[in-house]
Amino acid sequence: MNIQKPSIPKGTRDFGQQDMAERNYIFETIKGVFRTFGYSQIETPAMENLSTLLGKYGEEGDKLLFRVLNSGDAFGKVDLDGFRDGEGRINSVALSKEVCEKGLRYDLTVPFARFVVQHQNDISFPFKRFQIQPVWRADRPQKGRYREFYQCDVDVIGSKSQVNELELVQIVDKVFSLLGVNVLVKVNNRKVLTGFAEISGFPDKVVDITVAIDKLDKIGLDNVEAEMREKGLDDRAVAVIRQILALSGSTEEKIATMRAMMNGGSASGLVSETGLKGLDELEELFGLIGAAGVSCPVETDLSLARGLNYYTGAIFEVKAMDFSIGSICGGGRYDNLTGIFGLPGMSGVGISFGADRIYDVLKGLDKFPKDLKTSTTILFANMGTSEMKYILPVAKALRDRGIAAEVYPDPAKLKKQFDYADRKAIPFLSITGGNEMEALQVNVKNLVTGAQESFAKDNLDGIAGFLSL
Amino acid sequence: MNIQKPSIPKGTRDFGQQDMAERNYIFETIKGVFRTFGYSQIETPAMENLSTLLGKYGEEGDKLLFRVLNSGDAFGKVDLDGFRDGEGRINSVALSKEVCEKGLRYDLTVPFARFVVQHQNDISFPFKRFQIQPVWRADRPQKGRYREFYQCDVDVIGSKSQVNELELVQIVDKVFSLLGVNVLVKVNNRKVLTGFAEISGFPDKVVDITVAIDKLDKIGLDNVEAEMREKGLDDRAVAVIRQILALSGSTEEKIATMRAMMNGGSASGLVSETGLKGLDELEELFGLIGAAGVSCPVETDLSLARGLNYYTGAIFEVKAMDFSIGSICGGGRYDNLTGIFGLPGMSGVGISFGADRIYDVLKGLDKFPKDLKTSTTILFANMGTSEMKYILPVAKALRDRGIAAEVYPDPAKLKKQFDYADRKAIPFLSITGGNEMEALQVNVKNLVTGAQESFAKDNLDGIAGFLSL
Repeated sequence: MNIQKPSIPKGTRDFGQQDMAERNYIFETIKGVFRTFGYSQIETPAMENLSTLLGKYGEEGDKLLFRVLNSGDAFGKVDLDGFRDGEGRINSVALSKEVCEKGLRYDLTVPFARFVVQHQNDISFPFKRFQIQPVWRADRPQKGRYREFYQCDVDVIGSKSQVNELELVQIVDKVFSLLGVNVLVKVNNRKVLTGFAEISGFPDKVVDITVAIDKLDKIGLDNVEAEMREKGLDDRAVAVIRQILALSGSTEEKIATMRAMMNGGSASGLVSETGLKGLDELEELFGLIGAAGVSCPVETDLSLARGLNYYTGAIFEVKAMDFSIGSICGGGRYDNLTGIFGLPGMSGVGISFGADRIYDVLKGLDKFPKDLKTSTTILFANMGTSEMKYILPVAKALRDRGIAAEVYPDPAKLKKQFDYADRKAIPFLSITGGNEMEALQVNVKNLVTGAQESFAKDNLDGIAGFLSL
Repeated sequence: MNIQKPSIPKGTRDFGQQDMAERNYIFETIKGVFRTFGYSQIETPAMENLSTLLGKYGEEGDKLLFRVLNSGDAFGKVDLDGFRDGEGRINSVALSKEVCEKGLRYDLTVPFARFVVQHQNDISFPFKRFQIQPVWRADRPQKGRYREFYQCDVDVIGSKSQVNELELVQIVDKVFSLLGVNVLVKVNNRKVLTGFAEISGFPDKVVDITVAIDKLDKIGLDNVEAEMREKGLDDRAVAVIRQILALSGSTEEKIATMRAMMNGGSASGLVSETGLKGLDELEELFGLIGAAGVSCPVETDLSLARGLNYYTGAIFEVKAMDFSIGSICGGGRYDNLTGIFGLPGMSGVGISFGADRIYDVLKGLDKFPKDLKTSTTILFANMGTSEMKYILPVAKALRDRGIAAEVYPDPAKLKKQFDYADRKAIPFLSITGGNEMEALQVNVKNLVTGAQESFAKDNLDGIAGFLSL
């Protein structure tokens, strides 16, 4: 027999029972919160048609798609020589399109958009959905970056109301409060960023200006200005940006100052209708947050620019306050996600919880509940066939009450059975032998406290009560 | 913009909120039972190395594996002409091995074996695991057969005790009792089948003899005999098989008759030690089933032969009694699953729940709980900004009590908001306007009964009580 040393593809992971217990704890917590806000779960196939995926994640994203070889005689009908360049080398990109029609899901957003368009007649809008499934990316694996990882997305599509943005903030607040993690929610608005570019006189420089704002803390005002001039911004633009960088005070005060600037009060005197609209949205959102009551801090961060080519309104990012790691949650509003699939004018907003980072935060802060480890409450030791048969109905009756009970399958040495209970962290052990059988009793020992007690075999209330200690 | 008509690969499915609610109901029920028996969940990557998968499912299975194209320049370094046959045609099988190192999981058993061997030093044996994940097969899609479907496997490895077989029967019993489906559990034993072949004098004809036994009901005794003679069995063998076909009575009686036959009492006078061992196992299992108490019928079926090349002891199959469909659950014992990965002598036993068929049975018998449909308990209509701000803390407080509450995001016409509640089957609606605000009240209407009541805004106990009606 050909013996193979077992391994898994790089960048992928096995999850053992402890990992699963901890990951399920995170997912169940998040799901529970999603459900109280009226979001429903959907699932989409792991494989999507490549035509659905290609071109949605930029050129770099296309390269990171895992492609699935067509089944059957994939190469039989392909003219391979037609895919050679002048030097006879095969063009892998072009050939792979020919022999692969399907690819693995790269994120949950594009499949969601495809789902909404495909099932639009069966969906009640606004459509509030969540989705928790793995995605696959042919990224170079490194610490904390995997080729298979779960995404955990919540989105609402078909409503422009800021109530949806509020709900996402409330969801974040509730999830991390349940997980015991202090977080800071940062909010920005793409329209405000557009407004900054417009009142600077360089409406097409949104990215450069946002990057410049982001760098203030790291490189200082002088260097930011120098960089902006390198990007081709003029004195007037730099003057406006200096005003932006000098913004201070509470969120309300910042919004008021920005409103004056967007209204012609900046160094350029230019007006930005888009910027004013963005400020209206921001102001409305903070008003709703105040009315609804949110316990975690929420603040504007004008340097926040994730997914700049994608978002059209609110932008969110969530940071853990007591643990140093990148953002653990993020998202924003997109106005035309489903347009590419033939359904224009659908505005949506969503956020994605980063399960792996949240896992790292909970591990780092030791926030996992202590009782996650134990899957089984009581192990019945196997003292021989007749003793085991005596105990089987007791184990069954406990399970029927929802108590996890194991019967050790083999009449092994007691030491071995003890070790099994120990390694699985099973807190109760029943060693019920001939004496107990004669007395129609069951013995139960609390392995943590050492306390033990004998119960009549049919005193299930008594046994269950002892096990709940 | 290039508009694409959205679709998904053939043989795959989207699951909407109703599907998910129903599927989750099945999975949560099964998981809950697994947990009370002390089984823990694991997950393995969707992609396995093809070296792990190839050769494990027979030649036909190899063809049905979905292969994942190597990322990067998959074809750049491959000498394609080296894969041509005499007529210049590309050998797709050979080339695909060169350009694909990974494949999608085909079942959960081989990844489980790989997992056990890879993590053997971290595992406490006997290792009781369950796993619920999708698998992928490039089968021709047809009604009830998909290219992506969930498997739901429970196995214990590292113990030869029949207590494990008992537990699987108990698990089946409990799961289907919770799901409200009457089932029949059929049991056979591979060693008994081997014994039949041995006392027939044709130890290598296990498959032919088992098929013959299976055909008795369909084609009658004469035709079975004719077929057996075609397969090369002689008079003596036919005489023994006639004795097997004539077996009747209770399980105990059948086992006693078979024991006499295996002990030299058959028409051939041959003895089968393996057959006797199989009968010991069957007898022990039925003894345990009697001692533990199992509510569904369990019977021996000597024609049961699923996975004959694979199983070495018990073989199980579960049928729904009141709904016509193939087996909804099946499995058995395998003695050397991990040997191919370098860990010999590990005996295990497991069963797999067929989620799609169980779904069809529950649909067909109308056994899904009626309250699965409703994800949201109460919709707060949006009567305008100030009314909405008034209601937000009430919605929040209800959610904090675990009640699913939605606030309609837009101040749309009431008809539209009503329709939304109706389509989502939300049972309670709050229309709280200016009058209620002035009175510091909240109005709640039961859309099913028509009953409505007003509560003081802070009387959350009252509101929650009304919602629990």
